[in-house]
Formats: sequence, structure tokens, C-alpha cells
Amino acid sequence: MKVLVLNCGSSSAKYQLFDMANDEVVLKGIVEKIGEAKPVMVHEWSGGKQEGEVVAKDHVEALHLIRDAVHDPARGGSADPADIAAVGHRVVHGGEKFVHSSLIDDEIEGIIEDYFSLAPLHNPPNLLGIRAARKNLPDVPHVAVFDTSFHQTMPPKAYLYAMRHDMYDKHRIRRYGFHGTSHRYVAERAAEMLGVPHDGFTGITCHLGNGCSLAAVQNGKSVDTTMGLTPLEGVPMGTRSGDIDPAIIFHLAESLGMDLTSINKLLQKESGLKGLSGLSNDLRDIEKAAAEGNERARLAAEVYGYRVRKYVGAYLAVLHQPRAIVFTGGVGQNGTLMRERIVGGLEHLGIKLDRARNQSPVRNGHGEFDIAASDSPIRLLVIPTNEELMIARDTVEVAGLEPAARA
Amino acid sequence: MKVLVLNCGSSSAKYQLFDMANDEVVLKGIVEKIGEAKPVMVHEWSGGKQEGEVVAKDHVEALHLIRDAVHDPARGGSADPADIAAVGHRVVHGGEKFVHSSLIDDEIEGIIEDYFSLAPLHNPPNLLGIRAARKNLPDVPHVAVFDTSFHQTMPPKAYLYAMRHDMYDKHRIRRYGFHGTSHRYVAERAAEMLGVPHDGFTGITCHLGNGCSLAAVQNGKSVDTTMGLTPLEGVPMGTRSGDIDPAIIFHLAESLGMDLTSINKLLQKESGLKGLSGLSNDLRDIEKAAAEGNERARLAAEVYGYRVRKYVGAYLAVLHQPRAIVFTGGVGQNGTLMRERIVGGLEHLGIKLDRARNQSPVRNGHGEFDIAASDSPIRLLVIPTNEELMIARDTVEVAGLEPAARA
Repeated sequence: MKVLVLNCGSSSAKYQLFDMANDEVVLKGIVEKIGEAKPVMVHEWSGGKQEGEVVAKDHVEALHLIRDAVHDPARGGSADPADIAAVGHRVVHGGEKFVHSSLIDDEIEGIIEDYFSLAPLHNPPNLLGIRAARKNLPDVPHVAVFDTSFHQTMPPKAYLYAMRHDMYDKHRIRRYGFHGTSHRYVAERAAEMLGVPHDGFTGITCHLGNGCSLAAVQNGKSVDTTMGLTPLEGVPMGTRSGDIDPAIIFHLAESLGMDLTSINKLLQKESGLKGLSGLSNDLRDIEKAAAEGNERARLAAEVYGYRVRKYVGAYLAVLHQPRAIVFTGGVGQNGTLMRERIVGGLEHLGIKLDRARNQSPVRNGHGEFDIAASDSPIRLLVIPTNEELMIARDTVEVAGLEPAARA
Repeated sequence: MKVLVLNCGSSSAKYQLFDMANDEVVLKGIVEKIGEAKPVMVHEWSGGKQEGEVVAKDHVEALHLIRDAVHDPARGGSADPADIAAVGHRVVHGGEKFVHSSLIDDEIEGIIEDYFSLAPLHNPPNLLGIRAARKNLPDVPHVAVFDTSFHQTMPPKAYLYAMRHDMYDKHRIRRYGFHGTSHRYVAERAAEMLGVPHDGFTGITCHLGNGCSLAAVQNGKSVDTTMGLTPLEGVPMGTRSGDIDPAIIFHLAESLGMDLTSINKLLQKESGLKGLSGLSNDLRDIEKAAAEGNERARLAAEVYGYRVRKYVGAYLAVLHQPRAIVFTGGVGQNGTLMRERIVGGLEHLGIKLDRARNQSPVRNGHGEFDIAASDSPIRLLVIPTNEELMIARDTVEVAGLEPAARA
């Protein structure tokens, strides 16, 4: 049995086809520049790669191309159309209604649309993708997997902002959190590494990619996370500022005469590692420049590590008996020096980094490793994330396919 | 020798006269509604109290009234004009230029004026007060004591926002921090309680009043604090939101059509304890209502305590060998239940609250007490703050008066 996983942006459609018998990716690809002058499709399978201009004036046409590719044996696809059992869709904002992944019908589409104002950049293209996929693949179940769902177990003290109560009661302004699929995946993998059931994992998961967030996980449930109403809040990211004094926005408007559109762009696209360094949103470039003596690059890396470190401390103070800190995402998985900045010198909080293990990892069969000293009360786990696999697994479960597939 | 301490707002002038021989307040008072239709003066001394309408069309006239009062033996003042040796002024924003308190001259006044855009609500009336006081008391030294100075030892990783570098390089947008005089005072008192020199104190100071901020103090120096460019950032306060997702401001503008002035007012005046509870900005009212079953009041208190607790954890992660957490301000000094919310159940971080000591404090001669268990690695100190005394002491020191006074 195979499951197609889709992640649609405003002008792109990413896809992966999983073979659920072994959790492996059979093929994957992307249609880019949808609706623009020259759309491009990149398609990869174990036997090869195909890349070139395509016709895709909208998401329906893009999904048509994807449908043809996943059913084409010459390009790694399934000859038997029935072999693709379901489609899983990544949806960014599920508000408070979606605590779990959900089988998509017209009503569910309507709720995703209701959340457009909470995620104006993400939910509209996500829904476009869902509608296009249901049109092209009408005979299989479609499942929506939300970035926000995992965090819907947060208690009110964590999700309420200290604002006038009608802001939440009436306007639903609260912390939602994102990257939930990734936090959930690594929390489950961490539980397995620790030899405890999934609901026995208590610790901090740090998803540090181009977007970055941390989650505090108590007994397998998210109880706090750094991103909020939107993915702007929290730690610094590739180009996003993360937390700032909110009054900086008033100051920029009043003293520098900037309008809100420019300020939004400044905080979303021109801040974070890129803004501080003036060089790049990629930590690898920044560490390299820092090592070569670039002072701004050094500062950018220091600010980033320091801010993540503070949230690690904050979450240690809200968890009961935390057992591990998990690093994932490009920076989390590969940022050796950054991991040391974040958790080095925290012996007084029960965290003892083993510098040798950090620099020369000993990986298990999943590519995972532990960089804590043997006698550290808290483990320091590095776990490659796999959001797409999590979406595929949820899709199988929600669509009720598992028994048949295993039969 | 006596020192007059002044704190001027846009329509008020608060004053205290200290006898530096015993650090005691000889008299104190306030002129309110300066420039309004019916200004009022309240004046208290050990022998009595005087209250009533006065003529004060501006700060110069208000300071004239204060000068007369502090020199009037019938109202607790000094018969000998020379007995009032100096005037100390509270100034909110000293930017990066004022690392210490400073003897005021025309150049210093100009720098305070340069920071008007960083503290538009506070620095202009502070400077009005300075000019009025220098006019009325021209023969004594005047000293400016800044709320920001104590925090100017923060390293760049703590004071830089993750924004485009010209925001700091050119526009000086950074974390400044406030309440510095209070944080410094209680850090020094904490050092004395612990029996270490002032520069031997490492810990967290929590100033929880109507405005609230925490500071991380390493070896007597502030290395981080929760307030930022302005006093809006950080933990929730009486009416201020503290940290929010900055994108909430864009959401309020776009989805609810609010203008920046209304949003600023919402976050500064209608948020925090008052906004969440819908009742009051005073924690005493909120705890009372919560105990009587008011759900919003309970939530307001929970959010407040939880957010302070997170910063305590964050600062434990940036300090080397923290020895104490200090509570001050109205909530810090009197909020028994709130202190338990903040530091209860943190044994895994070296903090062991003694509930009995918290509820039935045993105070020293300064009214200070320790609520940690005897075997707690980290002490939990409750210390009444005294910003005015700190200003008076700085004034004596900066004006070079001490040797003469002690002679």
C-alpha cells in the first residue's frame, strides 16, 4: 500500500509517495512556479530524475501532472492505480477545531477556509492543493494533517496571551504553535530511544531549521511551544526575528515612518540570522564566516544560540521530570557548534554535554544519536525529523487503512 | 546632610527628602495635576500631613512649592538651606551613554533630550523636572539616576534583537531594560543577606509591581533583563501585555481594522492582569476574586505566575552558579501565593521552597526574609525595594559629598 503526501504553497506543490510496508519514499518531486510563465517540475525516483518545463496554470493542472507521474511505472510510479490508497495533506493552521488529523470532506474544507485570517499565507494554498488533489484523485480518502494539532493540548496558562479577554473569547487570538508534526515525530522517536512508551516521554523538542520552534512535551503531550498565533514568535530563525519588544513596531512606525507592510516584511524576511549577519539565512554560511573572523556572523550565531538556550531553561521550569532535550531540523541535526552553544555549561540544571560525542556522533540505524555524557540526568538526543512520514502514517490511521494493508 | 529625590511625570512631581546620616525619609510628597485646572499638593512629614489645592501651572511652579516645603521647619523641612546638599533625579531612559548616574549640566540635559524618541512618555517630563529643579535650587549639585544604567553591562547576545543589523547600528533599537535602580538595590541587599560582596552576587531579581521585570545578575552586574527597547516587553504587568507574538499587531490591524494608536493603548493600558481578569490591575483584587471562584481571575493569576516562572528558568540557563532568586515590588513582597506559583516544584533546578516560611515570614531588621528550605541550593529572598534611597545614595556619591557629610 502506498500513500501520497502533498504540501502545497501558493505557487508550488511538493509530493512524496511512501510505501507503507517499509516507510520508504518511492518517489518524490515538486511542481514550482505554478501559474507563472514557465512552471517547472522536478521528479525523482530510485531509478532516475526528470526535470523540465511543464504546463501548470493552476494547482489543478499541477496535481494532474503529479497524478500522472505517480501512476507511471516508467517514472517509479505504481502501475496499479488502486495501489495508491490515500493522500495526506499538510495544512498549516487547524485552529482549535483540529486536535487530530482529519478525513477531508466539504465541511472540513470549510473549516480550513475559516482559518484563512489566522494563516493568510499558508491556508489558502493548502486548500487549493486539497481541492485540486480531490479533483484529480477522487476515489481515495484525503486526510488533512495540521501543523497546529499537536499543540492543542497546551493548557490555558500557556496558550493565553496577557491581553484583554475578548481578544481570545471573541477573536481567538491565542498561541497555536506550529511544526507540530515534526515535534510529534521526534518526541515519539525520542520515547523509543529512551525505551519508554510514547506517552511516557517528557522533554524539550527543538526544531531548528529555516523556521525554528521549541516545544515542551509532558508525557507525550505538547504543553507549551515558542511559536504563537503565527510562526513569527519565539526564537530567531533564518529570516524571522522571533520575539521582539512589541513596541518596536510602534517605534518603527512613529520614529522611522515605516508602514505596517514594510515592518511586517522586515520582521519576516529581513531579520533573524540573515538580518543580524547581513550575509545569509543559512547557519552553515554564518558559522563559516564567523570562523573566518566576521564579527556580524559571530554575533548572529551567538544571539541565535543564546535565545534557544533561554527557552530550554524556560521549558525545564515548566516540565515535571524532564528526561531529554531533542535537536532536529537542519541546524539541530548538523549544527555541532550551535548545539554546544545551546546546552553547554548547564550542569547545574542536570544537562551534561559530552563534547566528543557531539563532534563525532555514533548513530543508530535511524541516523539518531545521543550527545549527553553517560552520567547526564537529562539525555541530549539528535533525531532527523520526518514530517512527511508522520503525515503518511496519520493518513493510513485516519483513513482506516492499516488492517487491510497489513493483511 | 540631606538629599532631595525627585521623580517627575508629565503632570506630577514626587519628592522625598532623605537624611543620609541614617537613610531615613524626613518628608515626602507629591504635586499632582500640574498645569491642570486644580493642582493638588500632598506633603507628609513625621509630625503631620498637609493636603490641598495649589497654584502650579507648570513644573517650575511645582518645584517652587516643593522648594518652599523642604525648607520650612513647620512642615518637617530644614531651617538651614545649606542642609539640603543635592538633588537626585529619576530619569527613565539613559540610552547607551549613561552607564552610571551622572552630574547634570547642560550637556547631560541635551543627551536626555536625545533619548526622547526612545522614551516619549517619560524622558520629556523627567527633563522638565530637572530644568525646573535646577532653576529653583541652583546652588546645589543635581544628579540624574537612570532606570536603564544598571543594565548597560548586558552583552550583545542579550541586548541585540534578531533584526536587520542597521536597526541597531543606525537606529539604536536594542534591549535597554528598566527598573535598574530597583534591581541594583535588591541585588546589593541580597549580597549582604548572603554575606558576599556586592560583586559576588549571582542570581535573578524579580521586580513585580504594577510594572514588572526580571534581571539576570552575574557577579553583581546585569547580564539580561525582560524589558526591552521600552517597558512593554517581558512578563505580564498590571495593564501591560508583556511578550506577545509581534504578528498579533499586524493581525489586529488587518483583520480587526484597528489603528496603531488603539493597538498601542490595548497593549499598554488594557492588557496584563487587568485585561485577562476584566477586573483589576491589582493582584490583591485578583487573588481575592480567584479564591471566590472567579474563573477569569484565576486564569489571570495563573498566566502571570507561569510567565514569570518561565523567565526564572530562562535566566537560570544563562547564569553561572546562581545563588538566589529575589522577589521585590508589591507583588513580589506580598504575593505569597504568587511566589509559590513561580518557584514551587522546581527542586530539579535546585530551588526548594519552604511553604511555611513563605506563608509566615521571619523578617530581619530590614523587613527582608528567606523563603527557601534550609537545604535549598538556591536561596529565595524577599526584599522590599527602595529606589529612592538608591537614587539618594548615588547622588551623594556622584556629587562627591560623602567625605564632607561623614566628617
